Amino acid sequence: MTDRTSISAAASRIFPYVRHTPVLRAAIGDHSPVVLKLELLQHAGSFKPRGAFNRLLSVDRPTGAVIAASGGNHGAAVAYAAHSLGLSAEIFVPAATPAAKVARIASYGARVVQGGETYAEALVASRQRQTETGALEVHAYDHADVLAGQGTVGREFELDAPDLTHILVATGGGGLIGGVAAWYAGSATVVSVEPEGCPALHDALRAGKPVDAPVGGLAADSLGARRVGALMFPIAQRFVGQTVLVPDEAILATQRLFWDQFRLVVEPGGATAAAALLSNRFIPPPGARVGIVVCGANTDPAKVGG
Amino acid sequence: MTDRTSISAAASRIFPYVRHTPVLRAAIGDHSPVVLKLELLQHAGSFKPRGAFNRLLSVDRPTGAVIAASGGNHGAAVAYAAHSLGLSAEIFVPAATPAAKVARIASYGARVVQGGETYAEALVASRQRQTETGALEVHAYDHADVLAGQGTVGREFELDAPDLTHILVATGGGGLIGGVAAWYAGSATVVSVEPEGCPALHDALRAGKPVDAPVGGLAADSLGARRVGALMFPIAQRFVGQTVLVPDEAILATQRLFWDQFRLVVEPGGATAAAALLSNRFIPPPGARVGIVVCGANTDPAKVGG
Repeated sequence: MTDRTSISAAASRIFPYVRHTPVLRAAIGDHSPVVLKLELLQHAGSFKPRGAFNRLLSVDRPTGAVIAASGGNHGAAVAYAAHSLGLSAEIFVPAATPAAKVARIASYGARVVQGGETYAEALVASRQRQTETGALEVHAYDHADVLAGQGTVGREFELDAPDLTHILVATGGGGLIGGVAAWYAGSATVVSVEPEGCPALHDALRAGKPVDAPVGGLAADSLGARRVGALMFPIAQRFVGQTVLVPDEAILATQRLFWDQFRLVVEPGGATAAAALLSNRFIPPPGARVGIVVCGANTDPAKVGG
Repeated sequence: MTDRTSISAAASRIFPYVRHTPVLRAAIGDHSPVVLKLELLQHAGSFKPRGAFNRLLSVDRPTGAVIAASGGNHGAAVAYAAHSLGLSAEIFVPAATPAAKVARIASYGARVVQGGETYAEALVASRQRQTETGALEVHAYDHADVLAGQGTVGREFELDAPDLTHILVATGGGGLIGGVAAWYAGSATVVSVEPEGCPALHDALRAGKPVDAPVGGLAADSLGARRVGALMFPIAQRFVGQTVLVPDEAILATQRLFWDQFRLVVEPGGATAAAALLSNRFIPPPGARVGIVVCGANTDPAKVGG
């Protein structure tokens, strides 16, 4: 069960290896102030090292090798964590993973295997390989240690901005929002934001169970899980207060805003939560104090600036 | 006199208009941890709006027009501040000001006049123009209200990281380090870092007075004042504990490090202070707790990433 106890234990475990990322109070469009948690300043450019480190550090005696499938960010995080802990890593990514992310994974010394069209196919390939090598699998979201690790984002956010009433979080496979929702456990409204092209949690909550959903659009490489995790789903049913879908144009406009007004390079998945506010797909109720997790930076900076 | 009283007054005055930028504790190269003040997240991409707002808000009845000369960042800040306060702005920049900065100034609705080879020449042109228009001049560094505004960087840094023993600050005309040194007033060692190509404070402290110095190299557009301000000089004599010069290669390597390890786009002048640590031109004494002001982001992101 992922809860405050397991998340606090994760925080103690991963403390020497991850950054406590800062918050910034600022206006976003007409909304002033909101509190941004700048988790894109994390090692490897996204929140993912939290879950990866918690998974690896929770194993009694990790073997020498770890394996993971990823759209890119989780792969970079596992490669970074493995390298930090003296383990080797094999990372499986789909063909569509951006070159910047493939290069990043390789830069941490991991072997990258690129193939298949989606994350789901990369996962199948990685599991086939895992049966041959016996490497330790680090799932991108559907593992209790990964959920608890990502939940430390919520723990830090509450420590640094205890007054928030609404927390906007982008959802892919649901590791981040599952962990954050488990931390807040209803004490603030956790809002799931997904691109219209990747509505896995939106569809699952409607269906009453995780179901296959479309995977497409601008943020598919970071939010394009075919279905949300089994472990996060009951947490979402209980503690995710609202789901919002945003169009790709809003994500792109939000990336531009982050560069123009903050000089931050934010990848599409990292801009998705804030896009809910900018596009008015999420309208804060009167008196709301809104927090936004800016969760990833891994894109080609030439694409956002200038 | 720029001191804690005038800096605290500036902080109260500019509070609604500037961001309290966050700090991040992290390793930089082999140095762990250092505390980075992420002032590059400030409006207009550098610390400069602090001084600009304090100057404009300290005038009883600002006329409708303001004028400034700048290498780029100060111009963007004055344009931003003028726009926020409903004033018009004319900004004089030298020919070498990067296109990204010229576009930024224009984006805030200011008129940009580009010409001359150095900041010093742009200043002469702006003063000629000022005698014609009577616009309110906002000097880039040599004005008490500007110094006190920039000093709010020191005030926030001490509030958020009260344990620091050494504060590394890049020096151009000396507005930022003058304000920061006036704030700390010897309670921490303020270290001036300049590119080898722009040693204005280093040369002034040797000469015992502000003297003309070379202007060149990678960071000249933000740190290329020909000589330091008359107002900051006695502050520097009293409260700047050490001056360090860094080669351009170290600045470039530091820009790359900020992208690779933090996903931050940092301009050469913004990377200069940290370059002192990375290049071992500044070696912290045992037990030192080092803070670094990361003071500017305004460069073409395509130049740093990938």
